[in-house]
Amino acid sequence: MFALDLIIRKRNGQKLTKEEIKYFVDGYTKGEIPDYQASAFLMAVYFNGMDTDETLWLTEAMLHSGDTVDLSCIPGIKVDKHSTGGVGDKTTLVVAPIVASCGVPVAKMSGRGLGHTGGTVDKLESIPGFRTNLSREEFVRNVKEIGIAVAGQTENLAPADKKIYALRDVTGTVENLSLIAASIMSKKLAAGSDAIVLDVKTGSGAFMKTVEEAEKLARLMVDIGNGAGKKTVALITDMDRPLGKNIGNALEVSEAVEVLNGRGPDDLREVCIELAANMLYVARKGDIEYCRMLSAEAIEKRTALNKLVEMVKRQGGDSRAIEDISRLPKAECRAEFKAEASGYIVKMNAERIGFASLILGAGRKKKDDVIDPAAGIELLKKTSDRIEAGETVAILHTSDQGRISEALGALKDAVCIGDAPPPERPLILGKVQ
Amino acid sequence: MFALDLIIRKRNGQKLTKEEIKYFVDGYTKGEIPDYQASAFLMAVYFNGMDTDETLWLTEAMLHSGDTVDLSCIPGIKVDKHSTGGVGDKTTLVVAPIVASCGVPVAKMSGRGLGHTGGTVDKLESIPGFRTNLSREEFVRNVKEIGIAVAGQTENLAPADKKIYALRDVTGTVENLSLIAASIMSKKLAAGSDAIVLDVKTGSGAFMKTVEEAEKLARLMVDIGNGAGKKTVALITDMDRPLGKNIGNALEVSEAVEVLNGRGPDDLREVCIELAANMLYVARKGDIEYCRMLSAEAIEKRTALNKLVEMVKRQGGDSRAIEDISRLPKAECRAEFKAEASGYIVKMNAERIGFASLILGAGRKKKDDVIDPAAGIELLKKTSDRIEAGETVAILHTSDQGRISEALGALKDAVCIGDAPPPERPLILGKVQ
Repeated sequence: MFALDLIIRKRNGQKLTKEEIKYFVDGYTKGEIPDYQASAFLMAVYFNGMDTDETLWLTEAMLHSGDTVDLSCIPGIKVDKHSTGGVGDKTTLVVAPIVASCGVPVAKMSGRGLGHTGGTVDKLESIPGFRTNLSREEFVRNVKEIGIAVAGQTENLAPADKKIYALRDVTGTVENLSLIAASIMSKKLAAGSDAIVLDVKTGSGAFMKTVEEAEKLARLMVDIGNGAGKKTVALITDMDRPLGKNIGNALEVSEAVEVLNGRGPDDLREVCIELAANMLYVARKGDIEYCRMLSAEAIEKRTALNKLVEMVKRQGGDSRAIEDISRLPKAECRAEFKAEASGYIVKMNAERIGFASLILGAGRKKKDDVIDPAAGIELLKKTSDRIEAGETVAILHTSDQGRISEALGALKDAVCIGDAPPPERPLILGKVQ
Repeated sequence: MFALDLIIRKRNGQKLTKEEIKYFVDGYTKGEIPDYQASAFLMAVYFNGMDTDETLWLTEAMLHSGDTVDLSCIPGIKVDKHSTGGVGDKTTLVVAPIVASCGVPVAKMSGRGLGHTGGTVDKLESIPGFRTNLSREEFVRNVKEIGIAVAGQTENLAPADKKIYALRDVTGTVENLSLIAASIMSKKLAAGSDAIVLDVKTGSGAFMKTVEEAEKLARLMVDIGNGAGKKTVALITDMDRPLGKNIGNALEVSEAVEVLNGRGPDDLREVCIELAANMLYVARKGDIEYCRMLSAEAIEKRTALNKLVEMVKRQGGDSRAIEDISRLPKAECRAEFKAEASGYIVKMNAERIGFASLILGAGRKKKDDVIDPAAGIELLKKTSDRIEAGETVAILHTSDQGRISEALGALKDAVCIGDAPPPERPLILGKVQ
């Protein structure tokens, strides 16, 4: 078998075999196939695609390129969750404690963010003392003992994905459904849970701009998950506007805690309950309606909040910052973004708002950028809200006064005011299972 | 400007600008753009193509990546020729002397062959003592003084093409008309002649399998040549059967000398006269009919043969091997390939016959393989000829007895005998100007 033959076969639109795909992934991971052949192959995949079989084989080859997490010593159905990412997406901080507090173990490995805000790991690290670099043993022990752990990905989890993703990033081969699906699912399958709930975001602030694209990606990932023997469901959720009102790492922790306290924005609560209910559902806790009720109850009775406090303590964090969110990191500089006209907010472009929070220091442009945990944006008004000229739409938080005017400019582009509220758009746009 | 942007723009089917293409070619040649981005770019070009403008810009960027030959000190219109290559294609050895003997300077740089037989340079080197590694000064001086020089390409001629071609070869991006055209034309334009005649081969023994493909490639190359201010014409010629009767380096020199002696196979003579006539035509020697007459006369009067002798002497070769072809290298082992049935030869697959000659030692599988100058195949019968069972179709020449049975097997696959001769197929299938 030669790499060149596989490039040419895929270039000519032929279907590859399981062995061929494994040969390619293994060869590239070991450095036997050079970058320049891998990138030509990935571009051929970009144009000619892979079918569901090929995508499953690609996922399996990537998943087996490194270590896998063995959670079999933990009784029960372990459930994982993944979101394709969006602006203000702090659902893991709410959903994982809900599910764990209902007796379903959650063993979640998360990445750091590249883009507008940090990933879940960055968000958790805004809690003073919180450690996400758990050893494999510590991670498994925590799940076993308290039913929950959220940690950074260990070094050797799906190393093929790491190498392939880095190459895709610099060769224009990111935007392909099979490559995206295999990248996500190889890590999820390697992480060892028994069932997976996917949150595929769609809209201006998401990677998938249309519901159709999001559905295709969801279908592919669900088929891969089920094909690999893990019960998998996906929700398609809206990311045309930011989720919740806070964007930024400590700001998002604080909002998540608000939801777990029975407060917080309705949209965030709705999406979190739906995700948690589906995680309980795939863990066979009952029908979906019953699982929704369980999730709401976990909030109402503060059992989920207590679970979060327990996890924070266990991972070295200062749990007083959860019990009293005013103890979370606070920005030195604040500024208000005010409406220039009266009317209704007809659009809040999530991507532009994410960009404004990146400017303020909440995210990373490059892999090595340092995040400002306190930076971000607090939205006082959201899409459909009535607003008067001069009224405050958002509060900007940053440690660097010099960044405010650029961020205000980005926000100005992001917010449209019109004469009437826009048509309602549901938060949950679909479900694939 | 970033390489990644150009990859993505081409991937998305957008037309690149002249500056963008130059940025890419220069960046890659200098090593500032890595192989893995170049190969992704080439694969995007494979799928989305380049239009004539882009192909011209690519050609110009490659042409200016290194030295160019300055022939301005030589009076008259200098004419170059290029063939896309085929089995038994020794036309340069006939055509260049004809054209030079008619007073039109021929300054030809040729490559070595990779495949069934050597390139022109390899063929000439089968003449004892013949040197093709002329210095730039020697090359120009020979053309100036005797009107002809055929040399190997100098190291720094279109280095971008060298680097890009080597990458295409291992990344499945060879088969794209724009990349093929730019590769050929960048070298032709860098070689400094004023006018160019292209011989685009088509059929089983050629890279372009159909006349339509050959016409497209010819059109593109002619447009590039004319776009760069060089009068360019292309002939589409048949390569569904080998050209002439001899395949192999010394064997082809010997056949070329036969044609210059007024003998030799009709098909070879016809193609050579047509190519020579077109070279004289683009050098403004008269209308095409008159140029054909001049070419035929150069053979008849032996002025072309004398020109070849002059060139061989000037380039250090033993011209007695031209005056008496029995002095050319001879193979130690010979074998006959005999017909198994009586009838007409309905097909001689040129590619398979080329492969048989490669087995015998006439060509290179890998770049560093050493060619056996005496090895090859002499066809006693050709397509359409009547043949009796047991009659000899071809004589195999090699220095290595052990290669004969494999070569005989390849020849057996190549030759089809039927009840009636096949329909006539013209040798000259089209002209593009």
